[in-house]
Amino acid sequence: MGRPFVLRRVVRFDEIDAAGIVYFARFFTYGHDAMEAMLASLDGGYVRLVRDRKIGLPAVHVEADYASPLRFGDEVDVAVTVERVGRSSIALRFRITRVDDGRGVATLGHTVATTDLVAMKSIPVPDDVRAILARHTVETASAP
Amino acid sequence: MGRPFVLRRVVRFDEIDAAGIVYFARFFTYGHDAMEAMLASLDGGYVRLVRDRKIGLPAVHVEADYASPLRFGDEVDVAVTVERVGRSSIALRFRITRVDDGRGVATLGHTVATTDLVAMKSIPVPDDVRAILARHTVETASAP
Amino acid sequence: MGRPFVLRRVVRFDEIDAAGIVYFARFFTYGHDAMEAMLASLDGGYVRLVRDRKIGLPAVHVEADYASPLRFGDEVDVAVTVERVGRSSIALRFRITRVDDGRGVATLGHTVATTDLVAMKSIPVPDDVRAILARHTVETASAP
Amino acid sequence: MGRPFVLRRVVRFDEIDAAGIVYFARFFTYGHDAMEAMLASLDGGYVRLVRDRKIGLPAVHVEADYASPLRFGDEVDVAVTVERVGRSSIALRFRITRVDDGRGVATLGHTVATTDLVAMKSIPVPDDVRAILARHTVETASAP
Repeated sequence: MGRPFVLRRVVRFDEIDAAGIVYFARFFTYGHDAMEAMLASLDGGYVRLVRDRKIGLPAVHVEADYASPLRFGDEVDVAVTVERVGRSSIALRFRITRVDDGRGVATLGHTVATTDLVAMKSIPVPDDVRAILARHTVETASAP
Repeated sequence: MGRPFVLRRVVRFDEIDAAGIVYFARFFTYGHDAMEAMLASLDGGYVRLVRDRKIGLPAVHVEADYASPLRFGDEVDVAVTVERVGRSSIALRFRITRVDDGRGVATLGHTVATTDLVAMKSIPVPDDVRAILARHTVETASAP
Repeated sequence: MGRPFVLRRVVRFDEIDAAGIVYFARFFTYGHDAMEAMLASLDGGYVRLVRDRKIGLPAVHVEADYASPLRFGDEVDVAVTVERVGRSSIALRFRITRVDDGRGVATLGHTVATTDLVAMKSIPVPDDVRAILARHTVETASAP
Repeated sequence: MGRPFVLRRVVRFDEIDAAGIVYFARFFTYGHDAMEAMLASLDGGYVRLVRDRKIGLPAVHVEADYASPLRFGDEVDVAVTVERVGRSSIALRFRITRVDDGRGVATLGHTVATTDLVAMKSIPVPDDVRAILARHTVETASAP
């Protein structure tokens, strides 16, 4: 039974939009950054996976539910859990929480496919990636 | 019975990521740009709505399904339809198609809430916004 | 004696920063977009130059002077002139003007080097690029 | 006699452009991030300065010289020094160095004006900001 991986970060100056809050699409970058950080314990990190092994994790499906706007300078925790690992697909969930009041800000889901970036074809999830995902896999509630 | 609003655009130089394809979160900006273009026939466009009337359309829920990667210079059509308009919420659907081969690239859904940006509270969808949405509202299939 | 190439555009929703004005680094994208538009009359445009011919125009030196802030929805003209074309370098100047009051907003200079993107080595400015640049080359004032 | 303030960071996945290198305008964000980090020792950091005291540091002039391209995953040091502090203007210099080979990647200069963000008028550099700048002020070579 795994535990969430948590990345703490601050809302940056250039992440704000004309409504004075973090631009909605930017939350997906918060998720992507947390995924990269979770995979940092790979040999060479996510960087070597993409740059040298030419394996990427393009999104197949993503979704977000927004509960509360974020402003410049807010500090947030991005907690990643793994919901499911298939042959070549990975379902991740991200819960973003404002640090100062503990309030839930947004929840994201990313389903990505392990992909050969040269052939642009899906490939099985590599064993070393699978080992890291196992540490953060959380059983989801199932019907009785 | 409405018709889609279509925005045509080209993938820009700075929209590409380290995997050589359009960054997945960027597709939501394609959707947002198409929504702004659809609302351009408001008096003063989307700009006046946000800047002077202080009414915004923050996202409550968004989702995307990706079918085919986009590369620098690809030309795409972003077709917007309105799926549902409630008291203060609007559900939009975006179908992104590559122009040269007609291939479906991605489908996005945005549910937004008409919001007073000063009080950050939801307000009823204004009548002039509602009138434009009606032109692009498409009946979705219902169960018999 | 050439004439400026002018690209008209509007400040987008996501180009604003936490100070409520266009983020200073974004102006360079306005310049880059105008350069791409100027080169659109190449066979296949700037896209084919980069994607198929593998020739890029990386910046060697850039600079900007800011005179007036831009806000969401402001319409601007980006006027490009060519100041100098060397063996493998091109000096461009961009004057950004707000359309509604004609006020000068910023002036940018970009010096770029025509580069083989595979070998990452400078190459002579191709003849078809040189021909387009000639149309927008403006004599700069010289000492008497 | 001050010393540089250094921010270490890694090139992120979404900072790459269609030429496969860090987008030239992005370097200015590296500089801005380093400036924010340098001002973090203000009471409440740069965030409180902008958000609560409504004092910003809009750019008046910026420039960059590029020596070597950066790729996804490269680690860099951004070293900030203060070159000059006037009544309401601050001249900063940023030297960006690749960590693994020590190679100089780019040098940036930013001249910013301390500004009342409500009135959009320049104001004197606040004393607490001035005190931090003094720690990183480096004498520049002067003519004999």
